[in-house]
Amino acid sequence: MKKLLYGVAYYDEYMPHERLEEDIRMMKEAGINVVRIAESTWSTHEPQNGVFDFSSVDRVLDAMHQAGIHVIVGTPTYAVPTWMVKEHPNVLAETAKGQGRYGARQIMDITNPTYLFYAERIIRKLIGRVSNHPAVIGYQTDNETKHYDTAGSNVQLQFVKYMRETYTTLDNLNKELGLDYWSNRINSWEDFPSVVGTINGSLGAEFAKFQRKLVTEFLAWQAAIVNEYKRPGQFVTQNFDFEWRGYSYGVQPSVDHFAASAAFDIAGVDIYHPSQDELTGIEISLGGDMTRSLKRSNYLVIETQAQAFPNWTPYPGQLRLQAFSHLASGANMVAYWHWHSIHNSFETYWKGLLSHDFKPNPVYNEAKTIGRDFDRLSNQLIDLRKNNRVAIMVSNEALTALEWFKLPGGKTYNDVVRWMYDELYKMNIECDFIHPSYARLEDYELIVVPALYAVTDEALVRLNAFALNGGHVIYSFKSGFASEAIKVRTTDQPGIIHEACGITYRMFVEPKNVGLKGDLFREGEAADSVHSWMELITPTTAEVLAHYDHPQWGDYAAVTQNRYGKGTATYIGCMTSSTVMNTILKAAVQEAGLWGIDQELAFPVIVKSGMNREDQAVRYYFNYSDKPVSLTYPHVSGQELLEERLIKSGEQLLIEPWGVRIIVE
Amino acid sequence: MKKLLYGVAYYDEYMPHERLEEDIRMMKEAGINVVRIAESTWSTHEPQNGVFDFSSVDRVLDAMHQAGIHVIVGTPTYAVPTWMVKEHPNVLAETAKGQGRYGARQIMDITNPTYLFYAERIIRKLIGRVSNHPAVIGYQTDNETKHYDTAGSNVQLQFVKYMRETYTTLDNLNKELGLDYWSNRINSWEDFPSVVGTINGSLGAEFAKFQRKLVTEFLAWQAAIVNEYKRPGQFVTQNFDFEWRGYSYGVQPSVDHFAASAAFDIAGVDIYHPSQDELTGIEISLGGDMTRSLKRSNYLVIETQAQAFPNWTPYPGQLRLQAFSHLASGANMVAYWHWHSIHNSFETYWKGLLSHDFKPNPVYNEAKTIGRDFDRLSNQLIDLRKNNRVAIMVSNEALTALEWFKLPGGKTYNDVVRWMYDELYKMNIECDFIHPSYARLEDYELIVVPALYAVTDEALVRLNAFALNGGHVIYSFKSGFASEAIKVRTTDQPGIIHEACGITYRMFVEPKNVGLKGDLFREGEAADSVHSWMELITPTTAEVLAHYDHPQWGDYAAVTQNRYGKGTATYIGCMTSSTVMNTILKAAVQEAGLWGIDQELAFPVIVKSGMNREDQAVRYYFNYSDKPVSLTYPHVSGQELLEERLIKSGEQLLIEPWGVRIIVE
Amino acid sequence: MKKLLYGVAYYDEYMPHERLEEDIRMMKEAGINVVRIAESTWSTHEPQNGVFDFSSVDRVLDAMHQAGIHVIVGTPTYAVPTWMVKEHPNVLAETAKGQGRYGARQIMDITNPTYLFYAERIIRKLIGRVSNHPAVIGYQTDNETKHYDTAGSNVQLQFVKYMRETYTTLDNLNKELGLDYWSNRINSWEDFPSVVGTINGSLGAEFAKFQRKLVTEFLAWQAAIVNEYKRPGQFVTQNFDFEWRGYSYGVQPSVDHFAASAAFDIAGVDIYHPSQDELTGIEISLGGDMTRSLKRSNYLVIETQAQAFPNWTPYPGQLRLQAFSHLASGANMVAYWHWHSIHNSFETYWKGLLSHDFKPNPVYNEAKTIGRDFDRLSNQLIDLRKNNRVAIMVSNEALTALEWFKLPGGKTYNDVVRWMYDELYKMNIECDFIHPSYARLEDYELIVVPALYAVTDEALVRLNAFALNGGHVIYSFKSGFASEAIKVRTTDQPGIIHEACGITYRMFVEPKNVGLKGDLFREGEAADSVHSWMELITPTTAEVLAHYDHPQWGDYAAVTQNRYGKGTATYIGCMTSSTVMNTILKAAVQEAGLWGIDQELAFPVIVKSGMNREDQAVRYYFNYSDKPVSLTYPHVSGQELLEERLIKSGEQLLIEPWGVRIIVE
Repeated sequence: MKKLLYGVAYYDEYMPHERLEEDIRMMKEAGINVVRIAESTWSTHEPQNGVFDFSSVDRVLDAMHQAGIHVIVGTPTYAVPTWMVKEHPNVLAETAKGQGRYGARQIMDITNPTYLFYAERIIRKLIGRVSNHPAVIGYQTDNETKHYDTAGSNVQLQFVKYMRETYTTLDNLNKELGLDYWSNRINSWEDFPSVVGTINGSLGAEFAKFQRKLVTEFLAWQAAIVNEYKRPGQFVTQNFDFEWRGYSYGVQPSVDHFAASAAFDIAGVDIYHPSQDELTGIEISLGGDMTRSLKRSNYLVIETQAQAFPNWTPYPGQLRLQAFSHLASGANMVAYWHWHSIHNSFETYWKGLLSHDFKPNPVYNEAKTIGRDFDRLSNQLIDLRKNNRVAIMVSNEALTALEWFKLPGGKTYNDVVRWMYDELYKMNIECDFIHPSYARLEDYELIVVPALYAVTDEALVRLNAFALNGGHVIYSFKSGFASEAIKVRTTDQPGIIHEACGITYRMFVEPKNVGLKGDLFREGEAADSVHSWMELITPTTAEVLAHYDHPQWGDYAAVTQNRYGKGTATYIGCMTSSTVMNTILKAAVQEAGLWGIDQELAFPVIVKSGMNREDQAVRYYFNYSDKPVSLTYPHVSGQELLEERLIKSGEQLLIEPWGVRIIVE
Repeated sequence: MKKLLYGVAYYDEYMPHERLEEDIRMMKEAGINVVRIAESTWSTHEPQNGVFDFSSVDRVLDAMHQAGIHVIVGTPTYAVPTWMVKEHPNVLAETAKGQGRYGARQIMDITNPTYLFYAERIIRKLIGRVSNHPAVIGYQTDNETKHYDTAGSNVQLQFVKYMRETYTTLDNLNKELGLDYWSNRINSWEDFPSVVGTINGSLGAEFAKFQRKLVTEFLAWQAAIVNEYKRPGQFVTQNFDFEWRGYSYGVQPSVDHFAASAAFDIAGVDIYHPSQDELTGIEISLGGDMTRSLKRSNYLVIETQAQAFPNWTPYPGQLRLQAFSHLASGANMVAYWHWHSIHNSFETYWKGLLSHDFKPNPVYNEAKTIGRDFDRLSNQLIDLRKNNRVAIMVSNEALTALEWFKLPGGKTYNDVVRWMYDELYKMNIECDFIHPSYARLEDYELIVVPALYAVTDEALVRLNAFALNGGHVIYSFKSGFASEAIKVRTTDQPGIIHEACGITYRMFVEPKNVGLKGDLFREGEAADSVHSWMELITPTTAEVLAHYDHPQWGDYAAVTQNRYGKGTATYIGCMTSSTVMNTILKAAVQEAGLWGIDQELAFPVIVKSGMNREDQAVRYYFNYSDKPVSLTYPHVSGQELLEERLIKSGEQLLIEPWGVRIIVE
Repeated sequence: MKKLLYGVAYYDEYMPHERLEEDIRMMKEAGINVVRIAESTWSTHEPQNGVFDFSSVDRVLDAMHQAGIHVIVGTPTYAVPTWMVKEHPNVLAETAKGQGRYGARQIMDITNPTYLFYAERIIRKLIGRVSNHPAVIGYQTDNETKHYDTAGSNVQLQFVKYMRETYTTLDNLNKELGLDYWSNRINSWEDFPSVVGTINGSLGAEFAKFQRKLVTEFLAWQAAIVNEYKRPGQFVTQNFDFEWRGYSYGVQPSVDHFAASAAFDIAGVDIYHPSQDELTGIEISLGGDMTRSLKRSNYLVIETQAQAFPNWTPYPGQLRLQAFSHLASGANMVAYWHWHSIHNSFETYWKGLLSHDFKPNPVYNEAKTIGRDFDRLSNQLIDLRKNNRVAIMVSNEALTALEWFKLPGGKTYNDVVRWMYDELYKMNIECDFIHPSYARLEDYELIVVPALYAVTDEALVRLNAFALNGGHVIYSFKSGFASEAIKVRTTDQPGIIHEACGITYRMFVEPKNVGLKGDLFREGEAADSVHSWMELITPTTAEVLAHYDHPQWGDYAAVTQNRYGKGTATYIGCMTSSTVMNTILKAAVQEAGLWGIDQELAFPVIVKSGMNREDQAVRYYFNYSDKPVSLTYPHVSGQELLEERLIKSGEQLLIEPWGVRIIVE
């Protein structure tokens, strides 16, 4: 990447009247230097089977090039045209809810050969036409691709073959998945029942894993086609996204980002988040850390919000704060979905930089300041490198397993991830994300492991070795409980890691009116703080950091820490309030020797840092609040880039509400 | 109509044992002078295909006639018999939920030719048989007719043709409906997808409009058949009803009452409402105003509640209060659903005048007093004429549009209508309802326009002209936002009416902890009063009546008023508490010069008035509370009809809890 | 039964590794003397169509016999194998929701001949093989059998024939079910519509009754097959269960326990209940009373909880308390579901005596003390006989009727049953359950009748006669309202029993802010205590125990008592708080002369008693609280069996939290 990209999604096809020239004029004024086009408009580009019309692509490319604006071209495959569904209704995914209906995007069976035939043809037509255009800097395959719950008989057939490859014999399959239970045993491959009705979580989770594999394969297939046309200097990316709870919340359940990102040159991502009084920056940081970890490199924010929803319209200053927050996590591009607000259909109220009237407005006006600063500071801020000492271990497999075996009260895997991540964020501990299969654990000092419920023996053995050799690990409850096939381990619990943790438990209960007691906590801090889950822990060699505060379960340990070889393993046997989690994490971070001067600051003051291309330390200070904050600048003197002045070590730094400072040493 | 009608629905077919003579004796005692029969009993009248048995109709007609009770005969077409469904299962409507199942009423495809064939046959047999009977004064076609979400392939086919007629070309269709979005574009009429899965609100709303058209056509078809048999003096009506929220709430989403009522001689209606401590009279007034506005004439209350549900059993006095409230809105008939409580099936707990034991009970006993008074006062109270100066503009199109583009927090179009109507009611401002296509706006001084979201340019231009020429208009938020095809206007907002309103806005947010500030409000009155929606308004020429009270949005206007030509346009950019709405409306009513002596009274004292056949002013005073109220009678002296005494101007008028007085000048 | 049975469900088939010897060793240590095997493992025992493998049954039988542990063998028919569904998909029940899907247990059509053919074959193979094995003491047919909502065309056809047998003529059918309403009339048997869409509660309730009959017939069919193999001394039982609300709540809606139990030698049952702070013993008592009443004899608790769910893990002492509570209600067996916690699939978190690690744990350790005591005290505690003077009359028919005609606010039939039963339990009044068809009402002094909504004339006439002859009856609201076909009675209400009750009502309302007033209540006790339902009662000859406390309904009676012949009939016209119910019941119990010394004690001190095989009075005293309780022992001196010491009359008896004492006179 040569410079920071500041962009928008642009849909010439959706315009109610001719706007191209005026739009480009306004984009230039706002410093927009890249647009993404063409995804989601298949029916415009191929109005009838085999009839192509790329005139809107051509004219946008030419006009953008003339204006010096780069273009990322998306393959239009995630929304199928009406003619295709009318000709071949079975391109729609059959799911557990039955045959699909035309209407929305993302409703097809991504393994259907008819769909794949047409998809390949339009990709080749489009990419072949545009790849030599000088405006084009890269490609996005499809968009927010998932498996759309495809589960028809063709998918089932492939799944049975996949299961035979995975488990080899039916005896092995029946045993690992526990299929004797409720007479689910399969004694001949021909008897393999459709999995849509299964009540066996092991089987259901294997199917979910298989469905994620379909996504990986589909994306690799698209990337390979696009690669045939890609010119030197161009990139291919995918727009990944996260578990959606009205905003980007956590690990994406339907896609294995680690696996699927392998086919791409650079990782791209959607990040959407609460705003106004609810803006914290957590999702920007979380999404950035997750995406940066995919290829362990910088990434593109392909979509984030401009005005968006009525409840997200940013307060003055917030759009700037958000933009620089993305850079501080390692993004090389920040692009809005989308340029103009759409006048019909589903996302009319998901507003772009411009409102429906196309006139300048306060948000657009703020974007202009961002565009100027991105341009001015590009060389100093691009390609930020991190050297994080802390990693969080996450897995789709654990997530799926906890969907089948839910926590009482409704908390999910991503809630556990967020419970731990959010407190690290608030104490300004930056981190990477790793999968349990990650081999080089020694890259880190501290590994945080939320609810690693379903996992191989190997991964747990590797974590034990990591601690033995001097690493520090923090486990939450439920970790190690079951095999990768979600068979509960028959050993002492927590499975395998009980060795490093120096504890065991045989019983677990749902907490009601339970607090914690222990030296770690101030008077009253941990009262009534336990919810969702509690394991009744007996230490073998571990030190007890907290016992349960409960008339019946008070003798059991809740939080323990064990010295194991040269390292430590901390185990948190229950879900707690965020305050308590903060206290426990702080102690563990200090134990690992990672508590530094930036940790003395805390949310709403957020600090992010890294090294730039010139190997200068770049430090971002964010004020995530509606009050001004003041802090003593704790590092060596440096140049503040936005106000363009020297900041001396020890100088008082005042940051306005929703403000940001960037200091280069 | 020669006299006030006081009636019941009567089902001889449902009787557990012979009751006719005894029922008529008890009806006569209660002053019942009309019964409605025969709707919903097709399976009794045509027990097998082509075999007819109208014996229960004959005997009821004869017996009623002998007793001097009139009869309205309903066509029995809204509940199909078992034999028809068994012979022709596809008479049941196919909806977005799939093929229908036999069981309930109102489950057929009203466009199905098999159904229409049988329906026409039974209508001709029944009406041909009874039309010369001297007991029959009129007919009701079908009952509470709707489209029952019919959406099978035959309906889809008609819809495609309708769309071609409406939009002529696909280019026009694609553009107006924004079908390029998410690849929904239709490039050949053959590709037109089934609309049941659409995510395009413009397309979905067109289908809803088309479905309402099916209702209009079906009812006109039935009315035309019945008209062939109708004798002079007889009428044909339809029993319209309203959006149902456990009671009659607002504009009926599935029927265009304005269009559908054209085929009928007189409008009829269902009105059901909360009772006991929740009885306010609002629904009686609202339903009456809406129904009177259909043909701008008197109307029939074909169904209203007697005992009804356990939570509606009226307190002593309430049945009387309700009956006279209907008359005060212009009804010429008040009829109960129904005479006797039904002993089996779905509506066992929707009780009639009589309980299941058929014995006199407190509600029946109260009805006897109503029957006596209706009879005695018929000449003075019948055919009440209104000359309202205020109209509320409502539309099915805006309602449907706001179903597709919902307000945050769950409020709907009818909530906005009720938010405005209810306060008019409480300040004793009587009003008519008009559709945006209504041409003679100059009939009124003040037009209230709730959330007119989807509407033609012409209607908005006409409203601007109305203000220019001296009229007064009050708009709520969202008015003028989109075209009749729900394409957001690209002009300044509010679209077109921003000219008369003298304002514009480019942003809107979801209010949290937002109040209003302005001279209009007393200290604290408007704190925390804004919910659901707020537009960030900048006045151009308008006076600001209220700003938002919020740290970030406080510079924007919330409520404005603009002098425009000889009139004014008031714009309310947010949804508020009812208290605030009352304050704003009061100011606007005063501005329009419509604040009179009856407005000094307020709910729970409700005043309704009009001119009777003798051109005498008739004034109703209602006490909608459980406490006695006292008021100074503000008009010229007149005769009170219930207590039969003279009331002098300025005299103190005491009304008992749930009481009523009727004064004729 | 020769001795008390203490058992577990045992699934050798589900074991992750060879455990049999070790499991038996641990069972013996815990005093387990019976296991239940083989139900739910059809796919293991018949891995392919016609291929049988009973090796796990054989080896478990042999090993258990060698260890002196008895075995109950279940027929494996309630979970069908994969091959059967693959070969014959239509063995799955078609329900109102459509065709079934393979996955869960209990999904087949129990009338499907293919299923019945295979079921009969595996039953004969299995039972024929094991019946001569000395370990086998009895059999369980199927498990928790229900009709699984089977409603396919074959079931519908049988239902039509059943209806013709029941009602003989269509005229009679149409009249009794009120099918004229909404044109539901059936005028030819061929027109009989599928009942899945019906809105007629009478028809729907008949179908529910028919479905329950299918269960009765299916179980009798299985029992008859097993009886062919049964040796002298062996028994056949069925594992009945209750309405499930996350635990055993009340009358089972889908099975007529009274009818279905006729085919069995002894009644068996599932009882699950809240635990920890929510443990009250009510469900143990209720389930026991209901099951003991089926065959009016002792019964087997075939399943109850060991560790079970995280929110049920018992506090120390609770497992013992529960075990002896079962005996105190007349159980001769207490068995846990299940021995070991399962490592995969649906019930991984429904834990057994052992956790997944198979190690001894606190709950298992407590079981050891129970096993020892059961063994030691078997002769004194087995075959406890009751001679209860109070009965509660319950019926599936009333339950179903109240599902169709729901109480406002969501309370159901079983809520009414529990509202009355729970207070009897708390005042230590033991009772039996009887069906309205029970002929010998004179067996009792007091009959409590909750919401007997749909019932024959005969049953009500019998209840009147019971009161006339000196019995005491307590009715709740809604009793007598409708016929067995759910046709509301046209007589005065409450239908027929108004004679004995000396009251009538014609109106009923939904209470809001309603209390009671009357001499029965202490100051304020009954304020705001009425909810869900209230009938406006006028006494004819009854004494009013309470009027409603409400401004409009205050003249009506709420609770009445009438002397009728030599007895009394109490009528409660509304649903009240539990405190008020307690007060009313106490008065009625005293009136019936049933208030004794054990009634002076009250929950959390629970007393149960009976006569043992030696005709000794056995009295259980339970402390259902987490505080020690002290009471003056009120009976003649006796031997306390657990502490093995003499308790003198009048001695102070101290019971620890969750403790139990058993005293034999």
